[in-house]
Amino acid sequence: MKSFTVATLLKETKLQEIQIKGWVRTFRANRFIALNDGSTLHNIQCVVDFENTDEALLKRITTGAAVSITGELVESQGKGQSVEVTVTKIEILGDSDPETYPIQPKKHSFEFLRENAHLRTRTSTFSAVMRLRSALSFAVHKYFNDNGFYYMHTPIITGSDAEGAGEMFRVSTLDQKNPPLTEDGSVDQTKNFFGKDTNLTVSGQLEAETYAMSLGKVYTFGPTFRAENSNTSRHLSEFWMIEPEVAFMDLAGNMDLAEDFMKSVISYVLEHNADDLEFLDKRLLDEEKTKPQAERSELSLIEKLKFVTENNFKRVSYTEAIDILRNSKPNKKKKFNYIIEEWGADLQSEHERFLVEKHFKCPVILFDYPANIKAFYMRLNEDGKTVRAMDILFPGIGEIVGGSQREERLDVLKEKMAVLDIPEEELWWYLDLRKYGTAVHSGFGLGFERLVMFATGMGNIRDVIPYPRTPQNAEF
Amino acid sequence: MKSFTVATLLKETKLQEIQIKGWVRTFRANRFIALNDGSTLHNIQCVVDFENTDEALLKRITTGAAVSITGELVESQGKGQSVEVTVTKIEILGDSDPETYPIQPKKHSFEFLRENAHLRTRTSTFSAVMRLRSALSFAVHKYFNDNGFYYMHTPIITGSDAEGAGEMFRVSTLDQKNPPLTEDGSVDQTKNFFGKDTNLTVSGQLEAETYAMSLGKVYTFGPTFRAENSNTSRHLSEFWMIEPEVAFMDLAGNMDLAEDFMKSVISYVLEHNADDLEFLDKRLLDEEKTKPQAERSELSLIEKLKFVTENNFKRVSYTEAIDILRNSKPNKKKKFNYIIEEWGADLQSEHERFLVEKHFKCPVILFDYPANIKAFYMRLNEDGKTVRAMDILFPGIGEIVGGSQREERLDVLKEKMAVLDIPEEELWWYLDLRKYGTAVHSGFGLGFERLVMFATGMGNIRDVIPYPRTPQNAEF
Repeated sequence: MKSFTVATLLKETKLQEIQIKGWVRTFRANRFIALNDGSTLHNIQCVVDFENTDEALLKRITTGAAVSITGELVESQGKGQSVEVTVTKIEILGDSDPETYPIQPKKHSFEFLRENAHLRTRTSTFSAVMRLRSALSFAVHKYFNDNGFYYMHTPIITGSDAEGAGEMFRVSTLDQKNPPLTEDGSVDQTKNFFGKDTNLTVSGQLEAETYAMSLGKVYTFGPTFRAENSNTSRHLSEFWMIEPEVAFMDLAGNMDLAEDFMKSVISYVLEHNADDLEFLDKRLLDEEKTKPQAERSELSLIEKLKFVTENNFKRVSYTEAIDILRNSKPNKKKKFNYIIEEWGADLQSEHERFLVEKHFKCPVILFDYPANIKAFYMRLNEDGKTVRAMDILFPGIGEIVGGSQREERLDVLKEKMAVLDIPEEELWWYLDLRKYGTAVHSGFGLGFERLVMFATGMGNIRDVIPYPRTPQNAEF
Repeated sequence: MKSFTVATLLKETKLQEIQIKGWVRTFRANRFIALNDGSTLHNIQCVVDFENTDEALLKRITTGAAVSITGELVESQGKGQSVEVTVTKIEILGDSDPETYPIQPKKHSFEFLRENAHLRTRTSTFSAVMRLRSALSFAVHKYFNDNGFYYMHTPIITGSDAEGAGEMFRVSTLDQKNPPLTEDGSVDQTKNFFGKDTNLTVSGQLEAETYAMSLGKVYTFGPTFRAENSNTSRHLSEFWMIEPEVAFMDLAGNMDLAEDFMKSVISYVLEHNADDLEFLDKRLLDEEKTKPQAERSELSLIEKLKFVTENNFKRVSYTEAIDILRNSKPNKKKKFNYIIEEWGADLQSEHERFLVEKHFKCPVILFDYPANIKAFYMRLNEDGKTVRAMDILFPGIGEIVGGSQREERLDVLKEKMAVLDIPEEELWWYLDLRKYGTAVHSGFGLGFERLVMFATGMGNIRDVIPYPRTPQNAEF
């Protein structure tokens, strides 16, 4: 007798005696068990001969119970499945008290499910989301591996806070109440675990550059942190970031890479996760119906994914984009929350979405941004006022990728750091890359949860990571 | 004219005009450039026509300089390569001052290279190690993906310190010198970022169990932390861990999985990284020659890898192992540092290595350990004194994998937690897994850097991770 997962059993064509283990999703009419084991969105229907089954046993077949079923795989009489299982033996592995089990066979609010995040993957929505998250992760690794990149684990605990991407979390082993003090009364960091003040990383880019400048093509995919007190549906205090970095690649190459990469990972899930995507597509459609017409998306989830894979990304300079936005209807009619008045303005999500959804009707790559709204390490253009930065804009979400060609000239980089008061001693190793065998190089960063939100249609970032960390919340 | 990487160029058979960019490893006789770009261990030889090249330019072709070369791919006249490049044009992209460049074309100590970790992948040894690290990472993801596992990102910042695997790092945003205090004078954690005291995770296992109990087969691969002040060649404060967790799988299934997994990832690098392994095999051989005969390994690096892939792992109970060790020669002759006297003793690396290298001469899986030397969540056997734990022992290294079947019975788990003073309130969600649809489940943990050490033959764990974090050291 062969053991199956639900996924393999639903594809099985040989009618035979089988064994399967899983959790009861529903039990209808004292007869029909919808059994799920996480291997697929779908349940396998298991039909119990209730007339010949002990009453006490039947009562224990409840939503959430773990069961082991032996039976015959047969062609299904009912709709919605081609095969089902005629149960010959059922064993309750673990009961689930229907009075107290939080995950009832009904619609729960996402907020309630966040409070029960340890059980929420027992619902179709969250199991689909997390299977997609996993598939996207694999697609990322596969893309880079297939294209000759090396995966690099950049450090999580860092002694430098030079990048200035945001507020940081301190990492310490000092006594919290009575830290050791130096003679001048400041905290004595020499007594700390690492002998100095340390924080959680905000980005692995600078370290990734060191490896690109020896191994050629590398990428990171690891957790990064922001200690900003922003309680929004788009921010996490702990999130995963993907950062490729490539030697001898300029900004145009960077755009080529990012476009190819994004298309590849989204194509991967369109190909491998059709069931989960169809389910989430329908879920989003239902959710959209509850919104006023004007707020609904023009594209369904799957249409949005194909919008990315089937369109060329339009490359537009920041300067050109500002012109378009300044002369746009929503700007003239003051429909934007932030009116674009002059060159140098930082673009908001509403502007990015306008460019993608209304103006160009395709994903957009903006490039050559004003230097003063971008990071210190970006390559200054010959005009002296713009840098070789690029952002990729997607429908519904705005910016999803941010990247740049890096400043490879030692003197220009030092000057920029001086202006921003970044001490050279702290980044001596980063400067070394410009001292010894410097070369043009580029890379980009992608917040992985933003990608998962885009690919699943989920509206709150807390619903696309297993255990979200946000201000006032580090449960589980 | 086509651009190549060194890896693709060395395999190219069409003799043609080519372009290639990389870093000069050596420049001999004013003529022969050994060029490397990280794409492979090997260099491509580029031959400069020094008689027709500007003297000033020749002087800038130094070790570490980044260059762009145009030339003809020709059959090589010299030994050691089948093709080489006749240079028609060379452009210096980035100079490298031979007076100050730290990575000279000579042997550097690993200690020196650790201080220059941002440049050490410009050496053959470290580029080989890091390419292998990357390949092993991919092999891990590929194995689990091919076998129906979902990749899960477990949280890094945790509000719980229940697992007790070791000392933890505190994560905080409170003022370090003058933390806010409550009325009773203790630190007011409600003012902290997460509203409570938080730490860096020591393991993702407990959270992985929650996903196994809904998605069936999952794994984690992420950073974990230990704040222990242990300055050894085998410990890091920050390291990466792989932790699969599977529902409905017992200890025997866990052993099958772990053996198959270890063989698979090691086979992967034997197949895909032959060049790097041969180089490291030779490096280790040279290193061993400097040791006294008695301390040398009987197996070369590649032999050790094949020792794993070609042998069945011998499964031995802890009790049986104790008997073997007690009656062994080194125990009787008091050659072990720790003499095994009775059942209940914790095994040391010397004992594990004896079992693998001398007694069984194959990888060994020890199982059914005494309950009191193992973690609270391990499944108690019917004998009431052993738990369904397993450790996999490898040659040269001892324990490399530790796993167990998990205690799935609510009452037994609660009792164990009570004995160890683990508050139920802190693990309410973990206990929920035993309340609602509990089932047999198992998993294991593998410290990734231990695997990289094993597969590369490197003796110090600081040399197998890009930027090691250890007591008093968080540089870069």
